[in-house]
Amino acid sequence: MAKNKANRPQARLPRGFADRTPADIRRTEAMMATIRAVYERWGFEPVETPFIEYADALGKFLPDEDRPNEGVFAFQDDDEQWLSLRYDLTAPLARMVAENFDRIPKPYKSYRAGWVFRNEKPGPGRFRQFMQFDADIVGAASPLADAEVCMMAADTMTALGFGPGEFAIRVNSRKVLDGVLSDIGLPDADPRRLTVLRAIDKADKFPLSEIAKLLGPGREDESGDFTKGAGLDTAQTDTVLALLDPDETPRISDDLQRIGEIVATAGYDSVIVDPSVVRGLEYYTGAVFEAELRFEVKDDKGNPVRFGSVGGGGRYDGLVGRFRGEDVPATGFSVGVSRLAAALALREGAADRASGPVIVTVMDRGAIADYMALTTQLRAALGDEVPVEMYIGDSGMKAQLKYADRRNAPCVVIQGSNEREAGKVQIKDLAAGKAAAAEIDNREDWVAARPAQIEVDADIAAIAAAVRDILK
Amino acid sequence: MAKNKANRPQARLPRGFADRTPADIRRTEAMMATIRAVYERWGFEPVETPFIEYADALGKFLPDEDRPNEGVFAFQDDDEQWLSLRYDLTAPLARMVAENFDRIPKPYKSYRAGWVFRNEKPGPGRFRQFMQFDADIVGAASPLADAEVCMMAADTMTALGFGPGEFAIRVNSRKVLDGVLSDIGLPDADPRRLTVLRAIDKADKFPLSEIAKLLGPGREDESGDFTKGAGLDTAQTDTVLALLDPDETPRISDDLQRIGEIVATAGYDSVIVDPSVVRGLEYYTGAVFEAELRFEVKDDKGNPVRFGSVGGGGRYDGLVGRFRGEDVPATGFSVGVSRLAAALALREGAADRASGPVIVTVMDRGAIADYMALTTQLRAALGDEVPVEMYIGDSGMKAQLKYADRRNAPCVVIQGSNEREAGKVQIKDLAAGKAAAAEIDNREDWVAARPAQIEVDADIAAIAAAVRDILK
Repeated sequence: MAKNKANRPQARLPRGFADRTPADIRRTEAMMATIRAVYERWGFEPVETPFIEYADALGKFLPDEDRPNEGVFAFQDDDEQWLSLRYDLTAPLARMVAENFDRIPKPYKSYRAGWVFRNEKPGPGRFRQFMQFDADIVGAASPLADAEVCMMAADTMTALGFGPGEFAIRVNSRKVLDGVLSDIGLPDADPRRLTVLRAIDKADKFPLSEIAKLLGPGREDESGDFTKGAGLDTAQTDTVLALLDPDETPRISDDLQRIGEIVATAGYDSVIVDPSVVRGLEYYTGAVFEAELRFEVKDDKGNPVRFGSVGGGGRYDGLVGRFRGEDVPATGFSVGVSRLAAALALREGAADRASGPVIVTVMDRGAIADYMALTTQLRAALGDEVPVEMYIGDSGMKAQLKYADRRNAPCVVIQGSNEREAGKVQIKDLAAGKAAAAEIDNREDWVAARPAQIEVDADIAAIAAAVRDILK
Repeated sequence: MAKNKANRPQARLPRGFADRTPADIRRTEAMMATIRAVYERWGFEPVETPFIEYADALGKFLPDEDRPNEGVFAFQDDDEQWLSLRYDLTAPLARMVAENFDRIPKPYKSYRAGWVFRNEKPGPGRFRQFMQFDADIVGAASPLADAEVCMMAADTMTALGFGPGEFAIRVNSRKVLDGVLSDIGLPDADPRRLTVLRAIDKADKFPLSEIAKLLGPGREDESGDFTKGAGLDTAQTDTVLALLDPDETPRISDDLQRIGEIVATAGYDSVIVDPSVVRGLEYYTGAVFEAELRFEVKDDKGNPVRFGSVGGGGRYDGLVGRFRGEDVPATGFSVGVSRLAAALALREGAADRASGPVIVTVMDRGAIADYMALTTQLRAALGDEVPVEMYIGDSGMKAQLKYADRRNAPCVVIQGSNEREAGKVQIKDLAAGKAAAAEIDNREDWVAARPAQIEVDADIAAIAAAVRDILK
C-alpha cells in the first residue's frame, strides 16, 4: 500500500454523481414498492433491459435534447462497435420489443425501474445518473391505451398519499400541433416544422414573446448568441402561439377528445386534457402526459415552492417501428424517482430519524461469549421490530455509548460483572437520557438518580419487553 | 422514420448482456428482500454509491483478475479524466468511506445491492453485467467482525430456506499462507510471493501437480504457452502444497483460530474453518470466506450438479487505507445474486408460472364505459390478490382469448349484450377449459357442456368470489 501521500489516489466522486444515504434509499424503496403494487394490479409485468446497448440501437432519441447523440456516455467495444450507457428506459425497451416481436403478447404491458445516465454538465440538483420508473404499453393504437397509462399514473399518486387536487395528470397531443401546422400551410415534409417544434418545446423556459422570435425571425440571447428562427409570418406565429395561451379557446384533436371521454367515464377527475402541455413534442407522435404536483411545499430555507412535474410520457409510435420499417403503436409513462421522492420527503416534513439498532455493549472482554448469546437471542426475540447488534470495536464504554448515539440507537444493554453475578442487565434509554442530561447539571445527582436507566432480570423476555417500552 | 431496410438499425443486444424476464425479476426481488431483512436485523444500514467512479479511485483491485486494469469499462470525461464503470461494490465503498472518514461512526456497518460490470470476453452463463449484494464492516480489526460477517451470511442462507447441511460458510485466512511463506524463507518484500499467491489462486482450476509446476520451474499449457514459475525448490513447493492437501493436518493462524472459537461459541455449526479455501488471496489481507451450497440439483438436462459457491468475501484492510496512507480494518461479504437466484430456482424445481391478470374482454365496443367500470371495481375488490385488466387492443374475441392465454390469465370475464340485458357475466376458467378441451372432441358437445365457464350475477362481489374460487 502506498504510504507516500504523492502516490495516493484522492477519494472523490466525479462531478454529477452522488452517494445515497440510508434515509434516501429506504424512502425510495418504500415508494417504489407502492408504485410496483399499483402497476401489478393493472396487469403490467416487470421486464428489465441491461445498462449497455449498441449506440445505433439507442439512436438519437433523447426526449429532452436538441443535440442528437450528445449527452450520452459512449465507448468502443473490443470489436470497435460503439456501446452506450442507456439514457432512458424507453429506447432499450423499443430494442427489446423489436428483437422479440413475435414472441410477446400484444398489447404488451410492462414496467421497470432503473438508473439512466446523461453525459451533461452537472449543476446544483442536476445529476448525471438518476432513476426512472417506467410503464409502457406496446401494440395498442387505441386512445384507451393512453388513457390507461394516465389513469394508472393517477392511481399511483393516490397510492402514494396525494389527495384529490394535490396532483394532476395533464394530457395534450402532438396531433393538436400537427393540425395547426397543416392549417398554417406547413406540410409534413416542411423542414420548418422541426424548428417550430423546438421553439414550442422551449415554452416552459421562455415567455411567449421570446417564443414568437424563435417562430419568426430568430432570437438573440443575453450572451449575444443568435438562434435562427422558423421564419413564420406574423399571422402564422400568432396561430401557433394561441396554442400556448391559456386565455385562448383550446384546440382539441380527435385522440385528445377520446382520451378525455374515457377518463371522464371512468371518473378520473385528476386526468385533465390541457392543450398547453409542452413535453418533448419532437419525440412523441401522439398523446403527451405530464404528472404535476400542485401543492406548495417548503424548501430547505422555509420558502414555499410549488413542486411541479414529477413525471410524464406519451405516445411514441416510431420508436419500435424504426427497427421494423413500420410504425408500432406504443405509449408510456415515466416517473422521475428522485423528484417524486424529494416531493414526498418535503411533504412529510423533516423525516423522523429511523431508529437505529439496540446496541449490546461489551464491558467485560472475558465475557464475549455471554454478550454474543444475549445478542443472538435478543435479535431473535425482537425480529423485525428493531435491529440488535453487539459492539465489535476495540474501544471502552464511553466510546461505545458515543457509537450508540451516532447510530441513533434507541437504547443500549449494559452488563458488568456485578450485574452478571446478580442475574441482571441495565438498559439505558438514550433519548430519555439526553433529555435528563439537560436538566441535571452535577455528577453526583446524576449518579444518584441514574435517569433513563432501568435494571431488569437478565432474561430475554424481560429485556425485549423493556426495549419495546422504550421504542414506544 | 426510416422505411428503408438498409437504414434500419438492427435490434440486438451486445454480447454478454441479457434482458430480464418477469419470473427472474420477481424471484430475485423476493430473495433480496429476505437478505435485506437479515442484514437490517444485524444493524447494517443501506448505503449506495454511483455506477461511475474516477478510474484511479477504483484502482487495480479486481478480486479475481491477474491483469491489472483489464476487464473494466472506461471512458474519458470532458475534462480528459478517466472514468470507469464499477467492477465491484467494494472499491467504491472504500472511496466513499475514505471521502467521509470522520463523519461516519465506526465500526461502520453497511449493505448494498447493485449491478457491476466486467469488460471481458463473454461466454455461456458468463455475463458482462451482473448483480452483487454486499455487506461490509469498516473500522473493526477484531476477528469478531469477520465472525459476524460469516454468521450473518449463515443467517441469510437459513432465511432463504437452506437447511443445516445444505450450505457452509467456509473460512480461511491469508495469514495461514503468510506464515508458510515466512517459514520457507520468503520475506515480505520477496517478489516471488506474488507468483506463489497467483499459483495458489489457481488451485480451484488445476490439480496440485500443475500448481507444483507454477510454484517451481513454470508450466506449459495445452496451447504451448509458458507461464514462468516462482522458482521454489522441491521442499519449499511441498510445504506450500501441503496447505491445499485435505489429507494434511491443517495449519491455523491466530485470527482463524479466534474466528473458529467465536462461531462455535455462538453455535453456528455451518461456519467452518477450512484452510484449503482459495479465494483472491492477493486481494485480501486476512480472513477469506466462501459461501457454498452443498446439495445437488438437477441441471436443464436432468443431470445432478453440486451447486458450489454463491458468494464470498474477506478482510481487505488495505483498500480504504490506500487513500489515507494507513491501513483501515475492513471486512465484508458479497452474494452473487444471479448464482444464488439460480440455485433457488433449480431447488424449487420448475417454478409455478405466476398467475397473470384477470382479463375483462371487450365483446361490444359500444359498451366500453361499462367494461371499464367493471374493471376498475373488480380491481379494487381483488386488491393485491390478482391483477385485473381490460383488453385494450383492437382485436375480436378469439384474439382476446388467445391474448389471455399468453398472459397466463387464470380466467376471463365476458359480457355480451344478452348477458348485459340479463344482468349476468360469464367467467371462463382458462386452465380448466384447457383440461376439458383435451377430453371433448366435437364442437356440439363443447357448446352444450360449456365446460369451465360459469355464469354469475353482474355484481362485483359475486364476480370477485367466482375469481377467488378459480384461483384456489
